[in-house]
Amino acid sequence: MESRRSSDLGLFFEPRSVAVFGSLRQGDGEGYVVIDNMLKFGFTGNIYPVNPSYSQVLGIRAYPAVNDVPGPVDLAVVITPPATVAGVIRQCAQKGIRAAIIVTEGFAETGEAGARLQEQVADIARSHGMRLIGPNTIGIINSANGLVTNPYRIGYDRVRRGSIAYSSQSGVIGASAQPLEDRAYPISKMCDFGNKCDVDEADWLDYLVHDAETKVIAMHIECVRGGRRFLDVLRRVSDSKPVVVLKAGRTEPGARASASHTGSLAGSEKVGNDVFRQFGAITVNTLQEFWDIPKVFASQPLPGGNRIAIVSPSGGTGVMAIDAAVESGLVVAQLTRATLDRLSKFPANLARNPCDVGPSMVLSEDRQSVQETALGALLGDANVDCAAIALYAGPIGSITDTANIMDELRQRVSKPMAIWIYGPKLSMREDLALRLEAMGLPTYLELQTAVKALAVAAEYAQARLDRSRVEGFSQ
Amino acid sequence: MESRRSSDLGLFFEPRSVAVFGSLRQGDGEGYVVIDNMLKFGFTGNIYPVNPSYSQVLGIRAYPAVNDVPGPVDLAVVITPPATVAGVIRQCAQKGIRAAIIVTEGFAETGEAGARLQEQVADIARSHGMRLIGPNTIGIINSANGLVTNPYRIGYDRVRRGSIAYSSQSGVIGASAQPLEDRAYPISKMCDFGNKCDVDEADWLDYLVHDAETKVIAMHIECVRGGRRFLDVLRRVSDSKPVVVLKAGRTEPGARASASHTGSLAGSEKVGNDVFRQFGAITVNTLQEFWDIPKVFASQPLPGGNRIAIVSPSGGTGVMAIDAAVESGLVVAQLTRATLDRLSKFPANLARNPCDVGPSMVLSEDRQSVQETALGALLGDANVDCAAIALYAGPIGSITDTANIMDELRQRVSKPMAIWIYGPKLSMREDLALRLEAMGLPTYLELQTAVKALAVAAEYAQARLDRSRVEGFSQ
Repeated sequence: MESRRSSDLGLFFEPRSVAVFGSLRQGDGEGYVVIDNMLKFGFTGNIYPVNPSYSQVLGIRAYPAVNDVPGPVDLAVVITPPATVAGVIRQCAQKGIRAAIIVTEGFAETGEAGARLQEQVADIARSHGMRLIGPNTIGIINSANGLVTNPYRIGYDRVRRGSIAYSSQSGVIGASAQPLEDRAYPISKMCDFGNKCDVDEADWLDYLVHDAETKVIAMHIECVRGGRRFLDVLRRVSDSKPVVVLKAGRTEPGARASASHTGSLAGSEKVGNDVFRQFGAITVNTLQEFWDIPKVFASQPLPGGNRIAIVSPSGGTGVMAIDAAVESGLVVAQLTRATLDRLSKFPANLARNPCDVGPSMVLSEDRQSVQETALGALLGDANVDCAAIALYAGPIGSITDTANIMDELRQRVSKPMAIWIYGPKLSMREDLALRLEAMGLPTYLELQTAVKALAVAAEYAQARLDRSRVEGFSQ
Repeated sequence: MESRRSSDLGLFFEPRSVAVFGSLRQGDGEGYVVIDNMLKFGFTGNIYPVNPSYSQVLGIRAYPAVNDVPGPVDLAVVITPPATVAGVIRQCAQKGIRAAIIVTEGFAETGEAGARLQEQVADIARSHGMRLIGPNTIGIINSANGLVTNPYRIGYDRVRRGSIAYSSQSGVIGASAQPLEDRAYPISKMCDFGNKCDVDEADWLDYLVHDAETKVIAMHIECVRGGRRFLDVLRRVSDSKPVVVLKAGRTEPGARASASHTGSLAGSEKVGNDVFRQFGAITVNTLQEFWDIPKVFASQPLPGGNRIAIVSPSGGTGVMAIDAAVESGLVVAQLTRATLDRLSKFPANLARNPCDVGPSMVLSEDRQSVQETALGALLGDANVDCAAIALYAGPIGSITDTANIMDELRQRVSKPMAIWIYGPKLSMREDLALRLEAMGLPTYLELQTAVKALAVAAEYAQARLDRSRVEGFSQ
């Protein structure tokens, strides 16, 4: 049935071969940059530049037309002028290509004429059973095979392979605008849907629910077409994988601006945070939350409850962490007698939660053993479900020691942790953050976000438990 | 009258000479580190180490007792063991010192015995008309004279002189825990009140209202004693200078933890965000807001209204900025016909707000002139009161060009701006941020915070206008 096409986006994300249509001008041609990015990020498949004016680019043979390419092509990346795109898509269809990313701008987002052009392109693809992402998109990323189709120079060449799938309707959420390498976000796949003339968020969820690389899904959403279909998929997917949603265009003026820049037609359903939550999504409000909150799901187990332990080298930090915890639905864990006894043997009393290790670290001969013991005791406490840990990175003590303690801790603890790193030098904070991220420990730029991530994880775990009970009863 | 002492904290912040009591052990003695920090940050007054075991430290002559110091001493910094502090304060009083910072921990925050010791110390000071900051404090900073009394190694040696006064009840808000240099916060003075045995937030406000270096006050507050006095001062001060408050211990568990680590007595008034706002304060909820929101007041004029223009290289960014604006009380400015005409001459249509300069920058021969014209047109529009500007810093285009455009713009525009910098490399983002901060343009780590800062400024300006009108009528 024509209208019920496969949601399998496998050809987009795991193509064995990619044809690139666009200017191959050295340095800044859009096709050149896409190919350059794929090479830099180590794409493992075949790349076929298609452009009659070049015989090779970046050491790769170019073909005058896609029909000249020997062997099959799984994916086309198209960055030719708007008026040429329909022809390119037709050629792709004739070559048997079933997936194309149209990077080109200048379609529905520019007005009526652009919208008609876009519909024409979509019709051609549809009639050939070809799926399209875009137009007006920076494309996709698959960290597992180095597929980075971004048409802009990026400035780095590595995306950390991990289990978060990020999607957006904006280039600002992409490799060329975000420090994916410097922050070491653990990424499985990324997709910018652009104008969504075909592939949309519902397809994305349908695909990701079966994607073994993806454990958590983070979506920047401006508008959802076919809202009911999306919500049904959201409900189903969020039962097995957490879906974090940053809804942009929450306000009326925001929604109007969104319709303008993405070329969305009027009539897109108004779906807001309340509805997303009702269908199982976790909603966030800022870009920082969008990037950082999913990290707790990427590497940490779900908390068994909502009781938080807080470990901090400063009393004031503990107070702010409690506020954030209580305000986001966690409770401050009551430590067991055994834990309290164990923690009362230090120079300054550690036997409380939040556990302020600062004074004992100052007074003790062995700074690190204070931190180590406190962390071990709190995370080992039966009354503790999760821990927010504030770590200092700076010229006092050793970043390596701190990293080693956390490495040892994470190997014997099976409770979720979220880490806020503070300190006087950004370079040292980033150093420690990268070391911890490499171990699979989620680090946060803001104390309150670290705590909120744990709260969100606890809420998700509880909701899933509640639903499974309801289902158990109804059987 | 003994009980109504001067709130002039001038001796603390502008001492001509400072005596330091504490271990002078090379490298890590607390007194040594304080002196080392004062030297590194270029303190311009005399420094007198007081310690009978040393004849000199860091090239400075040490004195066996404070009485041996030739000439007057304005300020004492005390970091000796708790049991010795009373004696030190007594010697200071005999020397005629009228201001002392007690850095030492181990007083009221440790329990009953510590509280009694603290009261004893406070009594001695009181009976001699000496003012105390602390105990249990990391001390103070004055960026104008290099006075940095922090007892920890900091890792940098410069605080940018500016007009924000930050205060706290926690060492986490201080030079040794925050990247004051790397982020170039424009700081006039800082104070950690610690256990507040004497000097408190009301004294601080009373002092700062007359401090010509300070234009905006940011306070991390855990508890306020003598709440009514504080609130009266707050009301009065906030009429002339904005006061931004981060209340920690907002929740009941948070308040309990606060009482424990700061040694505050039960009976501290419960004063929350509602009350602070009622008395003129601007309240914020996260550390990032606490650090960043005051920056808009430090260098920017107050907005004449609440109509925001948004300039962004990406449509999606504009939508998120609108949401943040509307949700924090701003309205999206309706551009005048003249502005719209001026902006319609570009390759891609710029004639809207948010103004998405991205497509025109891509299509134009002269990228920077697009950005320059758009910024000039929007900020020159009579319907625009303030602007949130998203700037890209990365391998495309030139950071120097962007900085130059902003430099030229700020010289001819007298409307407040808040800038969010994004891009794929942290180093490049930080580079641009430092250049803009050096010009007095406030940069933000989070888009939503940049917008909120403008909203807060507009609200403050309106409230002040309303109050002055009420006062006008009542005359």
